[in-house]
Amino acid sequence: MTEHKTGGVWVAALTPIKSDLSPDAAKLAKHCRWLLDQGANGLAILGTTGEANSFSVAEKLELMDAIAAAGVPGEALLPGTGTCAIPDTVALTKKALEIGSAGVVMLPPFYYKGMTDDGLYAGYSEVIQRIGDARLKIYFYHFPQMSATPISHDLIDRLLREYPDTIAGIKDSSGNLDNMLEMCRRFPGFGVFAGSEQFLLPVLRAGGAGCISATANVTVGLCAEVFAQRASSDVDALQEELSAQRLAIQSQPLIPALKAIMADRSGDRGWLNVRPPIVPLDSADAATLFAKLGETRFEMAAAA
Amino acid sequence: MTEHKTGGVWVAALTPIKSDLSPDAAKLAKHCRWLLDQGANGLAILGTTGEANSFSVAEKLELMDAIAAAGVPGEALLPGTGTCAIPDTVALTKKALEIGSAGVVMLPPFYYKGMTDDGLYAGYSEVIQRIGDARLKIYFYHFPQMSATPISHDLIDRLLREYPDTIAGIKDSSGNLDNMLEMCRRFPGFGVFAGSEQFLLPVLRAGGAGCISATANVTVGLCAEVFAQRASSDVDALQEELSAQRLAIQSQPLIPALKAIMADRSGDRGWLNVRPPIVPLDSADAATLFAKLGETRFEMAAAA
Repeated sequence: MTEHKTGGVWVAALTPIKSDLSPDAAKLAKHCRWLLDQGANGLAILGTTGEANSFSVAEKLELMDAIAAAGVPGEALLPGTGTCAIPDTVALTKKALEIGSAGVVMLPPFYYKGMTDDGLYAGYSEVIQRIGDARLKIYFYHFPQMSATPISHDLIDRLLREYPDTIAGIKDSSGNLDNMLEMCRRFPGFGVFAGSEQFLLPVLRAGGAGCISATANVTVGLCAEVFAQRASSDVDALQEELSAQRLAIQSQPLIPALKAIMADRSGDRGWLNVRPPIVPLDSADAATLFAKLGETRFEMAAAA
Repeated sequence: MTEHKTGGVWVAALTPIKSDLSPDAAKLAKHCRWLLDQGANGLAILGTTGEANSFSVAEKLELMDAIAAAGVPGEALLPGTGTCAIPDTVALTKKALEIGSAGVVMLPPFYYKGMTDDGLYAGYSEVIQRIGDARLKIYFYHFPQMSATPISHDLIDRLLREYPDTIAGIKDSSGNLDNMLEMCRRFPGFGVFAGSEQFLLPVLRAGGAGCISATANVTVGLCAEVFAQRASSDVDALQEELSAQRLAIQSQPLIPALKAIMADRSGDRGWLNVRPPIVPLDSADAATLFAKLGETRFEMAAAA
């Protein structure tokens, strides 16, 4: 296995939302600290799971400031900063640097479809040049099912050659393990994060960095155990159990499912709030979720 | 045919871009005035064709102010204001109202995929309530190939019942004429705009409002002629020629193709600038475009 400075179990943190649909920064900070206490190596705040694309740029800038002010250490943060528009991406990324983030997870611009690698290269390149900061570490975000804008290996190769100190890795949420393993082989030292803890162990064994996962909001303890035991001969059974839990949760829409679990385990029904166009689970789907989860050995420390 | 207060030929205006990739507001205002002089009924600025999703919220607010300050009348404007985030959509829509726009073309939130009608209903509803302005007229933007978030007839029906004075119509860029005709039948008085002038005449004959089209940036004269002659027996031949021109242009990626035509006809190579992830046409594709266009009776007044 390869040691990555930024590696291990990173949680794509949920964003708690108030009843007026505004983000609850104080509760997010509390959740972040709880996740770190449970053994998370870091927090990928403001990602897909964090409903970040449903927040305005101003709201995202404020959330980053609030998290930093609440004492969550920058080196444990990989904020999501990629938007459709270069100036917004630059503003968010500069803020991430300002609060000392270990790096950023950067979606490609995702409105226009069928874009060429030339166009995506130009976009990332423009962002990097406008920021002009040697501390910048970019993790691509490959999530074709959501962004409809895949990150090709050729694009990675071109950007790695041009910006070797800036291009740090990728979060691969495609669910395609072969793609993750191929990137580990082709780009040594490049930080490949699986987008699901289901692939944590195989990606680590291939030299990847770890996982950045939505479901780790609630499976964080077992994720951390798999990571800690990664060199042990007993780890495969742990990974199998972890994968079973992941699959049980992703039988329902992930964000409302995770918020339903958080509400259940914390006793705080405010956790159920989501921002449109996401909708909460209805009671039948929630019952199905908890039944499936009950078939695993899912355990969770009392949530914040 | 049905008279629509906001109807006829609306141009999804291109946004001229400077060499530093910033939008050129003065040139956009000049282009808008030229389009109105050529017979456009109005301008759908800041849409897909206008590369609006590649501009920051701040840039879009400034562009609307600049267009208004340059004297382009509000009643000739349908700005695009839909983003992924409710507060951004609200801010842009309020600005559109402030400059007296006839209405807005509002994309659904387009990052999260597979959203339910309940979620989209909640999103539009929240925006309408936050704006709380009786002047607001919303045109939905149905463009499943780009937004991957279709606007269903059931969603239209629900929002029309709840907000009959606000929900004004739709731009249907799906290319599916049957869908446009069905909406004309099912929702009398609802302003159905075809997303391409290829469907201008059939949509008008079905009681629709007209078209909002990208290619009308350069076919505006003939579009206006078809609209003016819509009740004449000679109009079908005009529509056939118009459709041929549209199809010739859309054989290439639309935005750079249209900018290439604008550059060619105006002699201003600054028109070629696009913002990443869009890329300009390469010279071979541009040659193919002009050859195809040359097979039609394409004519264009000297552009601004």
